[in-house]
Amino acid sequence: MAPSPRDAAPGLQEQMNEISEAVNKTIMRLLPESDLPEAPLFEAMRYGTLNGGKRLRPFMLMQSAKLFGVDMARARRAAAAVEFVHAYSLVHDDLPAMDNADLRRGKPSTHKAYDEATAILAGDALLTLAFEVLSDVETHEDPRVRVELVNLLAKASGPHGLCGGQMLDLIGEKQEFDLGTISRLQRMKTGKLMAFACEAGAVLGKASEPMRKALCNYAYDLGLAFQVTDDILDVESSPEAMGKDTGKDAQAGKSTFVSTMGKDQARARAQMLVEQSKRHLHIFDNGRADTLKELADYVLQRRA
Amino acid sequence: MAPSPRDAAPGLQEQMNEISEAVNKTIMRLLPESDLPEAPLFEAMRYGTLNGGKRLRPFMLMQSAKLFGVDMARARRAAAAVEFVHAYSLVHDDLPAMDNADLRRGKPSTHKAYDEATAILAGDALLTLAFEVLSDVETHEDPRVRVELVNLLAKASGPHGLCGGQMLDLIGEKQEFDLGTISRLQRMKTGKLMAFACEAGAVLGKASEPMRKALCNYAYDLGLAFQVTDDILDVESSPEAMGKDTGKDAQAGKSTFVSTMGKDQARARAQMLVEQSKRHLHIFDNGRADTLKELADYVLQRRA
Repeated sequence: MAPSPRDAAPGLQEQMNEISEAVNKTIMRLLPESDLPEAPLFEAMRYGTLNGGKRLRPFMLMQSAKLFGVDMARARRAAAAVEFVHAYSLVHDDLPAMDNADLRRGKPSTHKAYDEATAILAGDALLTLAFEVLSDVETHEDPRVRVELVNLLAKASGPHGLCGGQMLDLIGEKQEFDLGTISRLQRMKTGKLMAFACEAGAVLGKASEPMRKALCNYAYDLGLAFQVTDDILDVESSPEAMGKDTGKDAQAGKSTFVSTMGKDQARARAQMLVEQSKRHLHIFDNGRADTLKELADYVLQRRA
Repeated sequence: MAPSPRDAAPGLQEQMNEISEAVNKTIMRLLPESDLPEAPLFEAMRYGTLNGGKRLRPFMLMQSAKLFGVDMARARRAAAAVEFVHAYSLVHDDLPAMDNADLRRGKPSTHKAYDEATAILAGDALLTLAFEVLSDVETHEDPRVRVELVNLLAKASGPHGLCGGQMLDLIGEKQEFDLGTISRLQRMKTGKLMAFACEAGAVLGKASEPMRKALCNYAYDLGLAFQVTDDILDVESSPEAMGKDTGKDAQAGKSTFVSTMGKDQARARAQMLVEQSKRHLHIFDNGRADTLKELADYVLQRRA
């Protein structure tokens, strides 16, 4: 079974489902089925994106936009863009030359369902589409907002973000990393895209600099907590519950938070990071940011 | 030996070398060497970009910008961005799962010099960097110009451009294509990025719509002529002269202009397309576009 948002507080759960559905509709509209000869590319793009998934990043983006009264319809395109980048990174990371993962979200990974060439191209095309969607005049956004979103997303995804993080991850198969390097790796691989999601909501809402910063810091701490719990789940959970192979880090000889500090310390660390992430949100009064705080707790408690 | 601009008229040759050098400097500045643990990613990005190459697309961009009096320093960043996208597409196309090419520009292709995972990531990072470079506030361009360039580049590179073209190309290994489909494939795979290069110069120069259109049409015809001559060179030339394996299309069973219409007809077609491409430039008076016309002739006569 594919993992779906669950184990979340009922109110949070409902909001996550709602936003997930809304963003999926936008994604489907942006990835129409095709009867062109190159249709397999479009199918693989849909397959890599619409196969379940918790839609955490779109949720962060939409909730952060909501803090500033941004119209949800406006935020949905940007939310789809961040999910395209996330999906592209999973499609490429799963390739045989990379993490060689046959399962993703409980189903064959994209290169298994199609073939390697199609998966490489579908990833490339999803990444490109993210920039097209953000920059498009159809968004009716101020060009200043559009170009800032593009630039932030590019910085979060490039050699100093996602790509650099994945490179480090691969190097980690042959080399032992200390805690500092593991943290830097995960900040690049997970934190930066989550920070983009939160910051994008603030950019759409023309938020003040301190509020932007607070949301970024929230995302960085939460991203790290997310990764620490991922490492714990990788040793504790089953492929059935996770929807992907487990125990792969140890198998690949990768240094993780768990291998470096042990399970108990890792759990304490995740707890500490979640508390810290929530504290950044104190800048928002009257419980405005309560949903994002609940999301942080959910990340800690999730079982998949 | 890596192919370099040659067989061009002496004046054109000199200008191509000059622009090639200037753009290479910009590329090197945008891809600094790194002493971070993930340095192999940066090295592979440099390797995939700075390994010779004719720099045709940067040349088109710079020449088109020059038509409208755009400062060359301004145009160089955009020229580097289009070359990043071109380089990324070559790095990914050469992968074993795609065209499985061991040689590129007379040297081992990126996945041979590094490894497959690094090549995939270097391609991803180059594509992302192109969007970062175009959108960056450092360009000092009007946000409207920046976001338009990003959107045009994304459209030229995504599922309806480069990625779609490469998908069609792979499908062509298993399926015979008629001339219409081959032309559409090549328009996507080669024409769109060249059209972006020419149009970007016009966007930087805030050119009139008819002039923009003329430059795009020039690029589409020239791109097709380029591809037809490429197909001819693939059957006529040697790996030594081309700096890459030849005869690969026939080996892969791909339908090409040569396999579909024969060498003589293909040659006549290329000639016709080059004449047609030059005619689009009649809108520019006083010989202003003569260099672009000479470039068209060069494409026809090149031997590598």
